Amino acid sequence: MTEPTRIPPRSGAAFILKRGELLTIIDPEGEQVADLASFSLEDPNEAISNGRTIDYASKLYFTTGDEIYSNRSNVMWTIMRDDVGTHDFLLTPCSAEMFRKLYGEEEPHRGCFGNLAAALAPHGVSPDAIPVAFNVFMNVPVDGKTGRISVDPPKSKPGDRFTLRAEMDLIIGLTACSAGQSNNFRYKPIDYLIHS
Amino acid sequence: MTEPTRIPPRSGAAFILKRGELLTIIDPEGEQVADLASFSLEDPNEAISNGRTIDYASKLYFTTGDEIYSNRSNVMWTIMRDDVGTHDFLLTPCSAEMFRKLYGEEEPHRGCFGNLAAALAPHGVSPDAIPVAFNVFMNVPVDGKTGRISVDPPKSKPGDRFTLRAEMDLIIGLTACSAGQSNNFRYKPIDYLIHS
Repeated sequence: MTEPTRIPPRSGAAFILKRGELLTIIDPEGEQVADLASFSLEDPNEAISNGRTIDYASKLYFTTGDEIYSNRSNVMWTIMRDDVGTHDFLLTPCSAEMFRKLYGEEEPHRGCFGNLAAALAPHGVSPDAIPVAFNVFMNVPVDGKTGRISVDPPKSKPGDRFTLRAEMDLIIGLTACSAGQSNNFRYKPIDYLIHS
Repeated sequence: MTEPTRIPPRSGAAFILKRGELLTIIDPEGEQVADLASFSLEDPNEAISNGRTIDYASKLYFTTGDEIYSNRSNVMWTIMRDDVGTHDFLLTPCSAEMFRKLYGEEEPHRGCFGNLAAALAPHGVSPDAIPVAFNVFMNVPVDGKTGRISVDPPKSKPGDRFTLRAEMDLIIGLTACSAGQSNNFRYKPIDYLIHS
């Protein structure tokens, strides 16, 4: 099998995936998050949608066998392998505004949001069009009674994998998460493989 | 006070609200939901964002005193009064695709999504740009352990009110919900008032 491509810590990448191809996201060191955004190659106004996906599955958590929908109610992804079982599909990518608001940082990093915006711009995706991403390996416990959420260290161990099959031709944005809360304050890379 | 404007059952409306104005949404008969979508009047690419709002508040449920954010991290709304305390900010507006997928309806209603799309089109908002709405009075219990969600009858009683203050000039889309699951299968109107 080909060597995986590495996304360095606190950065992002964009690339094309054709229908039927597999994307495997690997956490090489453990306890790291990858934000996954996706858009139809044919018309980037069709984007990954947590609202449609949660509605159609009547659940917040997704794993092997589950489908991820677009805002036009088409299946974008099928999850094929999940070594971890804990991911988030509620929160927007971390951003300069988020680091400023939640953590009072005065010179904040541009975050996954800024990294996705920069990587996706050449593909015709504007920052405003970046939706809630599927946050692979992100651990966001929810208290159903109070509605409180928290961001805990991921449960992923070194080498853990998450594989999805593209159900349409896609533009992908993928990051090695920039938020300390998401990786136990040890900013780390993410690896990925495109395969059949 | 002026008489409220009525949104008939299974329909929607769009209108402008200026910064500082109040929007009161009234459930005249009880057990009905209103989907609230909003966009900056200055640039409709700035839209209400559940992902940003949930992230900044670290919670899923919102009530009096809480702020609702846009996808550009600006405050769009402050909640001023809430007679009910149970609303949803997870699910996309009901749609023909949803009625088909979840309930097997062969000739489905266009739903809140279709109603919002029609009402918002003259304001320059495309269907693809309609995000997860703030679903006033919608009752969506969440099981934090399993991630399962359900759609239960609203807790609103006849005359219950929900008031928000516009924190910027806004284009509003508002519906009387078309999904039977959201109103105990008794499709009903929604009333609203714009006031100071």
